[in-house]
Amino acid sequence: MKKIAVIGLGIIGGSICGALTKAGYEVHGNDLDNFSVAVALEKGYIVDVAEDLSRYERVILAVPPKAAIRLLCEEKFKDGALVGDICGVKACVEKAVYEKVRNYRYVGVHPMAGKETSGIGSASPTLFVGANLIITVCDNTEDSALLEMQELWQDMGVGRIVLCSASEHDKKIAITSQLAHIVSNAYVKSEQAADCEGFTGGSFQDMTRIAGVDEKIWTDLYFANKECVLMELDALISRLSAYSVALKENDEEKLSACLKEGRIKREKIKRPND
Amino acid sequence: MKKIAVIGLGIIGGSICGALTKAGYEVHGNDLDNFSVAVALEKGYIVDVAEDLSRYERVILAVPPKAAIRLLCEEKFKDGALVGDICGVKACVEKAVYEKVRNYRYVGVHPMAGKETSGIGSASPTLFVGANLIITVCDNTEDSALLEMQELWQDMGVGRIVLCSASEHDKKIAITSQLAHIVSNAYVKSEQAADCEGFTGGSFQDMTRIAGVDEKIWTDLYFANKECVLMELDALISRLSAYSVALKENDEEKLSACLKEGRIKREKIKRPND
Repeated sequence: MKKIAVIGLGIIGGSICGALTKAGYEVHGNDLDNFSVAVALEKGYIVDVAEDLSRYERVILAVPPKAAIRLLCEEKFKDGALVGDICGVKACVEKAVYEKVRNYRYVGVHPMAGKETSGIGSASPTLFVGANLIITVCDNTEDSALLEMQELWQDMGVGRIVLCSASEHDKKIAITSQLAHIVSNAYVKSEQAADCEGFTGGSFQDMTRIAGVDEKIWTDLYFANKECVLMELDALISRLSAYSVALKENDEEKLSACLKEGRIKREKIKRPND
Repeated sequence: MKKIAVIGLGIIGGSICGALTKAGYEVHGNDLDNFSVAVALEKGYIVDVAEDLSRYERVILAVPPKAAIRLLCEEKFKDGALVGDICGVKACVEKAVYEKVRNYRYVGVHPMAGKETSGIGSASPTLFVGANLIITVCDNTEDSALLEMQELWQDMGVGRIVLCSASEHDKKIAITSQLAHIVSNAYVKSEQAADCEGFTGGSFQDMTRIAGVDEKIWTDLYFANKECVLMELDALISRLSAYSVALKENDEEKLSACLKEGRIKREKIKRPND
C-alpha cells in the first residue's frame, strides 16, 4: 500500500486525504490545529498522524504559500522523496525550492477545485473529481516525479491536467481565480446587497458566492502575485469605466458596442459542459 | 379551463407558456418570430396562436420594455382584463401604463429566473420553480388583480413572492442583476480569459457565466434604469480601486481590511440553500 503524508488539513488537504484513502493509499496527516487532525481521523480520511516527514516517500504540503515555502526550505525530507505543494501561486514557491540543491523531487500543483467555505468540515473525498489540475514544470522538474505526481492526482479523480511554467500559471490564475475573488468581495459591499432577500436570482448568487475569502490567506496570495493581479484589476476597472462613460454620455451605441464585445468574447470560451 | 395569452416566446415567455400549460391553463401564444411560434406549438407549450388580445381575460407580455410599453399603451385589451409584463425594469413601464386611465387591470412582475442562454430553445416549464418573484405595486394596483397575478405565478411554482414599489424594484435590481451582467461582460474581456482552458474552476465559471448578454435588449434595460445602474457601477469601480491602491502601496493591512469587510458583508447574506 502506497504511504503518503499530507500536511495541512483544511478543505484542500482534508479532501486530498479523503480522496487518497478512497483510492487505496495509506494516508498520514497533520495540522497545527488539533481539532482538524481529530476530525480527519474520525472521518477516516487519515489512518495516522504524520510526525517525522523524513520517513515518507511522498509528501503533499496543503498549506498557504508562506508555510509551504518554510517547510520546503527547512524541513528534512527523505532522499529522493516526491514533495509537492498545492498553493494558488507558484512562481514564489518554485523559486524558493530551487534556490538550493534539494535532496527531494519537487512538483508544484494547483487543483482548480474548492468551495466558498473552508476547513476540514468542508472537505470531501470527491472534491477533485473531474476538476482541472495545473502542474507547474521547469527545467529542474524530474520526469519520474512529474509522472508520479500525475498518477497521484489521477487516482484522486481529476479531469484535465495542464502542464505549464510557474509564471504562466500565475498570469492565468490572476484572472481565472484571484481577480474573481476581489470582484466578488467588492461586489457584495453594495449598500443594496445587504438587504435584497427575495430580489436575487442566479446572477447575484454567482457574483457573490466567493466573496467571503479568508483575508489573511488571500492577502498573502495577492501580494505573492502582485504584478499579475494588479494588471488584471486595473484593466478591469478601466473596462468597467467604459460602460459608465457610455451611460453618462447617453451613448446607446457605445454601450451596445461594449456589451457586444463582451458577448463575442464569451461565446469563444467553452462552458464547463461543452 | 383558464385561458391566457402570452406575447413573446423567448426563454421567459416560452417558459411561462410551458409552466401554465403544465398547470392546466389553455395557453395561446404569439411572437414576431414565426419559428418561435412553431416551436412553442410543437413542444406543446401553447395550443393556439394568440391573435386578437381583446379576446382574453388574462394577458402576459413577455417582451422587452419598449415593446411592452408600446403594447400596454396601444393594444386593445378586454375591459377588466388582467394584463402583466415581466420586464426587468419596472418604473418606466408603470409610468407609461398609468399616464392614462386604462380599461384593463395592470400588474407588473419580475421573475428572478433565467439562464445564460436565450430564446424558446432555452425555455423550460420548470424555469420558475422555487424562484423569487417580484411583484410591483402602487396606489393604482387593484387588489383583485394582485391576487390573480400571485395565483398565476404560484401555479407556475415560484417560491418567495416579494411585493414592492417599482422604484424599489429598480434600485434593488441594479445590484442583484443589472450590474452583475456588466461585471461579467467586462470580466470576460481580459486578454488572458480568451485562452485559459484547463486553468479554470468554479469561480471563473461563476464570474463569466452571464457575460453573453444580448446587447440590444440590455442597452435598453440599462438606459431604462440609468440612475440606479450608474450609482452601483461607479460605487463598485471606486471599491475595486481601493484593492488596487492597497496593492500598489504594498499595504498588507489595508488589503486585508478591504477583504475582511467584504467577508463580513458576505456572511450576513443568506445563501440560496440556507
